[in-house]
Amino acid sequence: MAIDEFELIDRYFCRETGAGVVLGIGDDGALLDVPSGQQLVAVVDTSVAGVHFPSGLDPADIGYRSVAVNLSDLAAMGAKPAWMTLALTLPASEPAWLEAFANGLFVAADEHGVALVGGDTTRGSQIVVSVQLLGLLPANTGLLRSGCQPGDGIYVSGTLGDAAAGLSLIQQAAAENELTARFRRPSARVQLGQAVNGIASAGIDISDGLFADLQRIVVASGVGATIERSLLPVSAALVDFAGEESARRFALEGGDDYELCLTVPVAKDAEFRQVAAGLGVAVTRIGSADNVAGLRLTDGGRVVEYSSAGYRHFSSQDTAQHD
Amino acid sequence: MAIDEFELIDRYFCRETGAGVVLGIGDDGALLDVPSGQQLVAVVDTSVAGVHFPSGLDPADIGYRSVAVNLSDLAAMGAKPAWMTLALTLPASEPAWLEAFANGLFVAADEHGVALVGGDTTRGSQIVVSVQLLGLLPANTGLLRSGCQPGDGIYVSGTLGDAAAGLSLIQQAAAENELTARFRRPSARVQLGQAVNGIASAGIDISDGLFADLQRIVVASGVGATIERSLLPVSAALVDFAGEESARRFALEGGDDYELCLTVPVAKDAEFRQVAAGLGVAVTRIGSADNVAGLRLTDGGRVVEYSSAGYRHFSSQDTAQHD
Repeated sequence: MAIDEFELIDRYFCRETGAGVVLGIGDDGALLDVPSGQQLVAVVDTSVAGVHFPSGLDPADIGYRSVAVNLSDLAAMGAKPAWMTLALTLPASEPAWLEAFANGLFVAADEHGVALVGGDTTRGSQIVVSVQLLGLLPANTGLLRSGCQPGDGIYVSGTLGDAAAGLSLIQQAAAENELTARFRRPSARVQLGQAVNGIASAGIDISDGLFADLQRIVVASGVGATIERSLLPVSAALVDFAGEESARRFALEGGDDYELCLTVPVAKDAEFRQVAAGLGVAVTRIGSADNVAGLRLTDGGRVVEYSSAGYRHFSSQDTAQHD
Repeated sequence: MAIDEFELIDRYFCRETGAGVVLGIGDDGALLDVPSGQQLVAVVDTSVAGVHFPSGLDPADIGYRSVAVNLSDLAAMGAKPAWMTLALTLPASEPAWLEAFANGLFVAADEHGVALVGGDTTRGSQIVVSVQLLGLLPANTGLLRSGCQPGDGIYVSGTLGDAAAGLSLIQQAAAENELTARFRRPSARVQLGQAVNGIASAGIDISDGLFADLQRIVVASGVGATIERSLLPVSAALVDFAGEESARRFALEGGDDYELCLTVPVAKDAEFRQVAAGLGVAVTRIGSADNVAGLRLTDGGRVVEYSSAGYRHFSSQDTAQHD
């Protein structure tokens, strides 16, 4: 029954490769052409069964998510995705599982023209999927965490908290809906990230929860910030599921949405909104950066006691963190 | 006791970075400058505790090996190592283990000027270390598996079989010697690979055993090859440990040496030997490529019945394979 690594690679992962791929899978390494005037962006993100996703999740969703979480990191840098490698550790080699996993992986890759150029499959006690994605960025540009200035508006894309609620539904084996879909197949904001590179002053993807991730922009930029709870964009599906109050909590703390949090200078506000509208991506202004150290939450304009360490990885057994 | 991922990254893995690193660890991705006229080479290799190394191996050796096995893949392409990312999955966060691991990792990286530019640490049931290394190669060059022609000489660097014997000694908790050292701290042939790029016609690193790895050159190049058992370079330490007969078997089948197998056109034989000698690397001609399909082993000139599938990953529980 078991097939070995080489057959496995040939059967499921070797495909026609893409732009800039001089040599793909099949040698000791891949040979890639970085166009002149472009800088390389490298990101890596690992998903572990039972930690980042339920062990029994549909392998096609595992494949899709493993790529999407990395696409989201590239989006947060403003980069265009180009190539990826896959390090896949599995307890066993089951053709049906592998075929579904590869299908999901390539769906996510194909949505953004990413070529799989290398990989390593190994045996281990648990499913561990590490994807490294390489992207391209015009030299001396890029959306860093450190560029936010006092006065900048703070925006988020889409709606927040859906994926965290979706995960709880999946864990309860509840019926599928748009919340579970957001956990299974997160849409990285790849086009938005590239389009606002040069417009937004700072960016991060929301993988650990808005409060925790925005905190990183605040610290890296050396600014303060205030966000208003009532402005947090939540979906009707989330409010239906959790109620208004809990929905806001999901929105503040829930990871796995892979929306972007972007800061925008006032002078570029109109341009930013126009670009997002042109892409059909909803963006919501939830607050602004200021000079008062720290990140504050207000509710109807009054400061609310709030603190969250986010989902930090080794602090407790069942929390997850993505870089 | 437990420290969280962010402290962990800061404490052990953040260091001054290297050439071409516009932005290292600490944002959503690393920004890297590929010099014009250079192509990028990407390799990835995963090491799993209990599969690729004994679970109780000194963490400094685990760190060192995890980088070395990737350096070896770059060497086999003729590339110059530049940057790496680390995906580290651990059952727990133990400062002493992490400090030793990071030290070993940086020893290997520093030997070849490699900067760690990103990573992801996650919790899992087993130690899984995936390193992706990025290297540089002058455009339109590179040591591929597919360039061997009939008539080319077949060379290996160093001595073979030592690391496999060393692993068996480590598993028996025997005294340390030069065989165990070769398993713990394999020396990737990074300088040799770069120096013979343009001289050798094909190359591969020996990670799964000479016979299995040379077979890949034979298949990729569409040639045949014959190698002579008595010519296989074995160390005195290996012969002492295993005897002459077993030493040759270790040399044919043992993985983990991370020597290079190179094929060299007759017209470049002298130049090849000179370049290797200039680097102080022993190279041994063990046979030649020909027109007769398949890889044959001779002993004193007579063909020996021999076949090996190498260490293929999902075929049995306790074998290991590296790409």
